[in-house]
Amino acid sequence: MMKWEENVRKVVPYVPGEQPKDKNVIKLNTNENPYPPAPGVEELMNTMTYQDFRLYPDTDATELTKSLAKFYGVRESQIFVGVGSDDVLGMAFMTFFNNTEKPVLFPDITYSFYDVWADLYRIPYKQIPLDEDFHIRKEDYLIENGGIIFPNPNAPTGVLESVNDIEDIVKANPESVVIIDEAYIDFGGQSCLPLVEKYENLMVVQTFSKSRSMAGMRIGFAIANEKMIDYLKAAKFSYNSYTMNMPSLIMGVASVEDKAYFEQTCEKIITTREWFKKEMKALGFVFTDSYSNFLFAEHKSVPAKEIFDKLKEKKIYVRYWNKARINNRLRITIGTDEQMQQLIEALKEIV
Amino acid sequence: MMKWEENVRKVVPYVPGEQPKDKNVIKLNTNENPYPPAPGVEELMNTMTYQDFRLYPDTDATELTKSLAKFYGVRESQIFVGVGSDDVLGMAFMTFFNNTEKPVLFPDITYSFYDVWADLYRIPYKQIPLDEDFHIRKEDYLIENGGIIFPNPNAPTGVLESVNDIEDIVKANPESVVIIDEAYIDFGGQSCLPLVEKYENLMVVQTFSKSRSMAGMRIGFAIANEKMIDYLKAAKFSYNSYTMNMPSLIMGVASVEDKAYFEQTCEKIITTREWFKKEMKALGFVFTDSYSNFLFAEHKSVPAKEIFDKLKEKKIYVRYWNKARINNRLRITIGTDEQMQQLIEALKEIV
Repeated sequence: MMKWEENVRKVVPYVPGEQPKDKNVIKLNTNENPYPPAPGVEELMNTMTYQDFRLYPDTDATELTKSLAKFYGVRESQIFVGVGSDDVLGMAFMTFFNNTEKPVLFPDITYSFYDVWADLYRIPYKQIPLDEDFHIRKEDYLIENGGIIFPNPNAPTGVLESVNDIEDIVKANPESVVIIDEAYIDFGGQSCLPLVEKYENLMVVQTFSKSRSMAGMRIGFAIANEKMIDYLKAAKFSYNSYTMNMPSLIMGVASVEDKAYFEQTCEKIITTREWFKKEMKALGFVFTDSYSNFLFAEHKSVPAKEIFDKLKEKKIYVRYWNKARINNRLRITIGTDEQMQQLIEALKEIV
Repeated sequence: MMKWEENVRKVVPYVPGEQPKDKNVIKLNTNENPYPPAPGVEELMNTMTYQDFRLYPDTDATELTKSLAKFYGVRESQIFVGVGSDDVLGMAFMTFFNNTEKPVLFPDITYSFYDVWADLYRIPYKQIPLDEDFHIRKEDYLIENGGIIFPNPNAPTGVLESVNDIEDIVKANPESVVIIDEAYIDFGGQSCLPLVEKYENLMVVQTFSKSRSMAGMRIGFAIANEKMIDYLKAAKFSYNSYTMNMPSLIMGVASVEDKAYFEQTCEKIITTREWFKKEMKALGFVFTDSYSNFLFAEHKSVPAKEIFDKLKEKKIYVRYWNKARINNRLRITIGTDEQMQQLIEALKEIV
């Protein structure tokens, strides 16, 4: 051990899904969108002048914030943008989940980053078991806590909670910030955004990485009341004033402005998903009723790990976790019809 | 006060230099480079396909890391890249300055982010006065500490410390991580990079924002021994696996590969700076012997705040801080010869 290591913050990092360099892989492991970003993104890309890169980007993300405010019908001062929703959520953990005694609550099966952030910031937390159908029991969230967070639809289950149930949780916890992580909300779920006007303790976080096909640009955002957003901005300006670079700030706008393309893309994925559900059922898979761009499935006889390995041999990547309660499940991203057809063919050989 | 505010981490954020929307402003307030990035950046920009933005970026920044390793003659495993050096430094504060009792040491006059990060992460710190000439007294850094950080050349003074003096500090503190923030090293200073092989407790941080003219792309990096880099990567993967977006990862490479352009640009700025020093002296300014892309100057009779305000009226932006010891100083970025000539003309009217 080196002498300086005593002072080091040691953490067990999150392990992201594999990013194979091989372009021939059918990549259904990180919930990327199979369709390209809005065509306007290309147009704005071509307007960029590389000479401008010598300047610092706009710390206030003025144009992007404006377009989001217009799209979601909120005030600009209610929006915070960051380097993907991970940046927004990580910053929110540090800012709002700051009680050193009361635990932050989130489900036992959920986005794998929550406990990692809690460990990183030394926030006490309590993982609350989902019910047998992977649903949240709202009564479980009425205990004393230092904050509440969960994705809706949940990851990696795809299970959607109703806005009414979520409202009950938000209403019952006025002393805590409740963060609803809506990374997958655009694939058929109902957003909690309308509740933001009603509850001062609610923050809704979304991302450009899934429904807007821009994972490579790293754009996420939070919508909440102004006071909450101000706290988040203070934390951001204390960490790194210039988090989002020029290309993100410029091109993100094009995605927001093309509502028709956005809706068509989501619709296509929903259609593929519903068809894929039928095919999977016919193959003997059981799965939650996903409202996201993935399916969380297990086979009634063949172990998930075996399917995972065999698919990988066939150059089809899906996601598998060797974790309690979900170690016989695969999370399969919804790709194009053609990709899903190839997957079905491969699965027919395996199961 | 809202009920949830009790749990909020409250911080006084760093205030970055103003980014005026008016393109006619002569902007000498944030140490941006007046010259564009390397021409290869434009070429790589034109090779980007917007369709790829649907995918997550390469978490390992493979190509950028490779090019940096080659340029600086180190192993790839010794490099960590982040969203500007602020991201790298902020992450390093959290990771390495983790002793809750021993203070982190840095100068009283230095980069304004250090105390902000320390407050954000609740790290005890001690600000050590520079001597009368704004130099570091190396003896001051031989006290018990939880880490040491300073820029070399220092900001906003531009004062350079010798590699020998820094080596003495690094050598005397084997139990602490010593971070040398070399944001401005390429403008005539001698880098501490060669010491990295010799001292396991040294980390050198640099940025693409100044000498590489890419502030808008947000790229910074650290070079240290592998173990230190591994700790930094673990923290990064615990915060946000995908921090750097595709355009940064792609275009950053072009800057590193064009060594001739890089050197020419730095040389031009050094030449302008040395000429500017003479002009400023003739106008009655006194200043430190800057080795950076800015001058830290005071006038022998006219107060800095007055000059600052009058320059702003003339649409010339420089930087002023109302802080102890430096409240009669201006930090003036070195722009093009033409910009500096315009500044000189304006100053002639003011002083």
